[in-house]
Amino acid sequence: MASISAGVVGAAGYIGGELLRLLTGHPEVEVTGVYSASQQGKRADSLHPNLRGHTSLTFTHPDDLRPHDVLFVAVSHGKAAELVRAVGPAAPLVVDLTADFRLKDPVVYEQYYDSAHPAAELLAGFTPGLPERHRDALRTASRISVPGCMANAAILALAPLAGVIDPDVTVDAKIGSSGSGATATGMNLHSERSGAMRVFAPVRHRHEAEVAQETGLRVRMTATGVEAVRGAQVLCHATASGVTENDLRRAYRTAYQDEPFVRIVAQRRGLYRLPEPKILAGTNFCDIGFAVDGDRVLAVAALDNLGKGGAGNAVQCLNIRMGWPECTGLDFVGLHPI
Amino acid sequence: MASISAGVVGAAGYIGGELLRLLTGHPEVEVTGVYSASQQGKRADSLHPNLRGHTSLTFTHPDDLRPHDVLFVAVSHGKAAELVRAVGPAAPLVVDLTADFRLKDPVVYEQYYDSAHPAAELLAGFTPGLPERHRDALRTASRISVPGCMANAAILALAPLAGVIDPDVTVDAKIGSSGSGATATGMNLHSERSGAMRVFAPVRHRHEAEVAQETGLRVRMTATGVEAVRGAQVLCHATASGVTENDLRRAYRTAYQDEPFVRIVAQRRGLYRLPEPKILAGTNFCDIGFAVDGDRVLAVAALDNLGKGGAGNAVQCLNIRMGWPECTGLDFVGLHPI
Amino acid sequence: MASISAGVVGAAGYIGGELLRLLTGHPEVEVTGVYSASQQGKRADSLHPNLRGHTSLTFTHPDDLRPHDVLFVAVSHGKAAELVRAVGPAAPLVVDLTADFRLKDPVVYEQYYDSAHPAAELLAGFTPGLPERHRDALRTASRISVPGCMANAAILALAPLAGVIDPDVTVDAKIGSSGSGATATGMNLHSERSGAMRVFAPVRHRHEAEVAQETGLRVRMTATGVEAVRGAQVLCHATASGVTENDLRRAYRTAYQDEPFVRIVAQRRGLYRLPEPKILAGTNFCDIGFAVDGDRVLAVAALDNLGKGGAGNAVQCLNIRMGWPECTGLDFVGLHPI
Amino acid sequence: MASISAGVVGAAGYIGGELLRLLTGHPEVEVTGVYSASQQGKRADSLHPNLRGHTSLTFTHPDDLRPHDVLFVAVSHGKAAELVRAVGPAAPLVVDLTADFRLKDPVVYEQYYDSAHPAAELLAGFTPGLPERHRDALRTASRISVPGCMANAAILALAPLAGVIDPDVTVDAKIGSSGSGATATGMNLHSERSGAMRVFAPVRHRHEAEVAQETGLRVRMTATGVEAVRGAQVLCHATASGVTENDLRRAYRTAYQDEPFVRIVAQRRGLYRLPEPKILAGTNFCDIGFAVDGDRVLAVAALDNLGKGGAGNAVQCLNIRMGWPECTGLDFVGLHPI
Repeated sequence: MASISAGVVGAAGYIGGELLRLLTGHPEVEVTGVYSASQQGKRADSLHPNLRGHTSLTFTHPDDLRPHDVLFVAVSHGKAAELVRAVGPAAPLVVDLTADFRLKDPVVYEQYYDSAHPAAELLAGFTPGLPERHRDALRTASRISVPGCMANAAILALAPLAGVIDPDVTVDAKIGSSGSGATATGMNLHSERSGAMRVFAPVRHRHEAEVAQETGLRVRMTATGVEAVRGAQVLCHATASGVTENDLRRAYRTAYQDEPFVRIVAQRRGLYRLPEPKILAGTNFCDIGFAVDGDRVLAVAALDNLGKGGAGNAVQCLNIRMGWPECTGLDFVGLHPI
Repeated sequence: MASISAGVVGAAGYIGGELLRLLTGHPEVEVTGVYSASQQGKRADSLHPNLRGHTSLTFTHPDDLRPHDVLFVAVSHGKAAELVRAVGPAAPLVVDLTADFRLKDPVVYEQYYDSAHPAAELLAGFTPGLPERHRDALRTASRISVPGCMANAAILALAPLAGVIDPDVTVDAKIGSSGSGATATGMNLHSERSGAMRVFAPVRHRHEAEVAQETGLRVRMTATGVEAVRGAQVLCHATASGVTENDLRRAYRTAYQDEPFVRIVAQRRGLYRLPEPKILAGTNFCDIGFAVDGDRVLAVAALDNLGKGGAGNAVQCLNIRMGWPECTGLDFVGLHPI
Repeated sequence: MASISAGVVGAAGYIGGELLRLLTGHPEVEVTGVYSASQQGKRADSLHPNLRGHTSLTFTHPDDLRPHDVLFVAVSHGKAAELVRAVGPAAPLVVDLTADFRLKDPVVYEQYYDSAHPAAELLAGFTPGLPERHRDALRTASRISVPGCMANAAILALAPLAGVIDPDVTVDAKIGSSGSGATATGMNLHSERSGAMRVFAPVRHRHEAEVAQETGLRVRMTATGVEAVRGAQVLCHATASGVTENDLRRAYRTAYQDEPFVRIVAQRRGLYRLPEPKILAGTNFCDIGFAVDGDRVLAVAALDNLGKGGAGNAVQCLNIRMGWPECTGLDFVGLHPI
Repeated sequence: MASISAGVVGAAGYIGGELLRLLTGHPEVEVTGVYSASQQGKRADSLHPNLRGHTSLTFTHPDDLRPHDVLFVAVSHGKAAELVRAVGPAAPLVVDLTADFRLKDPVVYEQYYDSAHPAAELLAGFTPGLPERHRDALRTASRISVPGCMANAAILALAPLAGVIDPDVTVDAKIGSSGSGATATGMNLHSERSGAMRVFAPVRHRHEAEVAQETGLRVRMTATGVEAVRGAQVLCHATASGVTENDLRRAYRTAYQDEPFVRIVAQRRGLYRLPEPKILAGTNFCDIGFAVDGDRVLAVAALDNLGKGGAGNAVQCLNIRMGWPECTGLDFVGLHPI
């Protein structure tokens, strides 16, 4: 029998649908409400056909939000702040997957989001949804802010190297089309997006602020949409003096040897020598690899933008918060070939 | 110097863009007007980026239609009828690429399009844009109706076999996403359409009426969207008694040996033994192949739905109408690999 | 603790890898041997990188086969017969995923495989691995022959309609590249196979003999490779007099209402109205849909060729044979979007 | 009537096939010999099915090389050196598309190719096949070495910025599967390569030496295989003080305003704001764009790796060498959508 009840706001979107998939299969959770401002009255499995036979929930309008032990928020950016303010202390546990509470400094927020922070007074109450870096704080958190998908990948790749590499880092990110969400636009039209190598953020991708905040490095991020539905990969280009591949391997092992969802992938043979997102689709893994050439360091990370880059990571945070085994509901190992 | 002026209505769409590409490179044609109800004032190359550096045209609203020696109509179905009626006899030559004038019988039109024909009185004035079957009539036509992409493929595959095969034929059609047009909808969202095998017309695809009309066969067509942007392929399943592969080869040779854009592809070796659309992208070819097993006959045809299935075929019709060499402006042979 | 030990022969292939993924996550099974004639000594996760961190097994040569409670055979066609003969009665339970024991009649085998059956004397000992049709026999079987991927889809779509439809059926099958296996050939080269609509079996695809055997219908099957890695879909074109969609829905409900892995998908709205394989990747579902137009019946089935079309179906058979809950180890619901 | 005769060695490969497509449509060239060590006796259109109906040539073994006015060499690296030495001065004009004569310094060659240069004495005789940088030298060259596909893109993006940007540049390159050639290997198997984001050269991709040689910059290149057949894109990450986007636009305009095949693409609106390879498939364009954020400069270039990155560029060099209009045979503008 389930231990807690969960509600998902923004459940018609892709992150919302992935949350629904994971929570539906989670032995400790019962999803008792799915909310969508645009799809109310429709069955959840009419939009998420993979859930046919696994849920009979229908979407409710967020205005009719009911109480839940945990509330997942996967709405568009800006709207989460309103929602969190509206539910107030009555909501015992909120896991926010939007950008609203990721940046601690409202000044930085304004630089990257071009408007004043919508709820700056709530920022201090949020714990970053980064299990590998804030696990202890997550155990008692009541407000959790899950990082951006590419930010999470870059943070996991770079944080263990802070102090080893020089502080200027260029992050070259690639991402699949699901990262742009479930709303039809010209940008996402199949005929246009198919086979793309679309540099949609040549400079100043918003996730760079998150990576800088968490690692203390000076980060510049470029993001390109490539042909994939799920998947994100970051190539972090850095420099360092006298660093060897063994040094990097050691730094990552120290950081991640006990982590259930971070794997070090840097091999000399085989087809999948460095992290690659396609075999991570549906999983909560972030694979991390590296290479060194003289004073140049390359760190590579890959994950499923809807998994460890979003919904999976959120469920991992919930598991930590509730004291459940951390892998509960997250045991899918991924497919090959795919 | 160009011989004639051309206007394209619906030039912001995919068929319209392909017309623009072909006409821009056509030595006898000058495009003097591109019309779009939704994109007026924008540069044509802002929507068709392959034309950067090759056109400086901007879209005009169709309400401001000017006179052109030839007018190509690539608007949504139903609107062509209004337009053709509005321009009247003042337009000396109209090539319509919509469905409005493909079916000669308004009763059949109503069965397939669920509304009365919008301009039945104009139907008799149209010549089918099928060079391989109506070349002589095209030489003097003033109104040309280009067939549907899958219809054209199936007609070219089946017409030479009428009399050889039994009259009941099942056509299994596959098509890429460009066949659904340039308007963003949930159906065409990359994340949803990618990797699809979507039976969007399980029975009664509208093109079956065109094939039946032209071949005299009883045709049932199913259509499935598969992963591709351009390309359509039809598998025509028929039966016949005592027919050999040599009989079929002979029938096709008789029909097409002098045709510049129909190739017979039925080989015993190699990777591309039967017609496949990907190597036809951008070309005006329709490749046709076949196989026999006992009393069963399979005819296969492939083309680019925007090429021989639309804009290319329209230009071929124009070439015939004007007495120019039939391949003028249509000499692209296609890419491999692709 | 695991109840039984399992060995997988041909574990370096795609079906073998999928078996390994499913069995590694199966609570009642311990994989104690993975065999490959070409990859001996290599780690299993070097070829199946999704299993990193989940297995430390290395491939052994099949000549060094050890005893296992259950032996899965996923070698190339023809070699399974030798292997099954070699292990003899000492192997208590064999689940064969090759074509060797699918056809009961060695004469039919020779017609389709162009050589005499390699072990006709063993044929009678095999039970078809079709849970929906031979569940009772599977409970006590010691030799199980899992059907071909497209055969399984077509059987599940057609068997409930036998007696309702006329006996002549045309099956139009589409399949992803993983169906051709893990051996590099020109046919499978990415640049050639990408975006393909390749009619690799215009007539007489071998799976048609299996469908005919199981359904009693006269089946003609054409198979086309389309752009996908995993996934198979069959369109079964049939005729019938006076049959309605409700009749078909009733026939399928009667057949499958208690089946855990067959879902009826025939909807009037939404993007995924009829069965589509991409949302089934990694699952053990076979989705079945239908449409009627006059005397024409279309039945559609989709599955993952490596899942319900191979390894998943084999595990379901094992669950039945061992008396375990039938869904054990098969609870992945599939991804959307993908 | 054709002016000169051409031979293509390595004509069964992808670069060779693209040469054949371009030369077959070139009004001044007659292809009089196609050579392949592995496919002798086969028809050229059996491997390059896009050429069906456009060539009846069959492959000859390179040992039976005949005289041609121009010889294109598209064999595997290392073999071109032998061939060029063997033909000697009797071959009046050789256009080499391999890596053998790209690096002028045999010491650098050995650093990147791990073996001594196979024909160092011939290096001085080669002119780089870079029309935008060595047009005058190409007019009289008898030995031309066409640059690597990603090298060409990076050189065209970076050369105009030398002196503007700081000398340390990181090049992040993406490429489609045709860049790995037409030989089937596990790496190129569709099921493995499909949807990949494969960092196959994390550091020291060989093309970086070419870019450094031509631009004088210190270049580090990482290369990743992404889902595409044709297409390469480079993201060049650099730094500079006080440089604006207008400065960059001016630098590129100065360099390329009269170039027929370099377009500046850096727009504020539309879907295709920065260079993207898919709309360049089959063309000889290299599109170049840029962005600036503070002291950071991003230069982006895209091309078809078989076109401007190989065969198209080679034909452009030939046109220059022969004094023909530079666009002869290279007028295909590319497709959209694709």
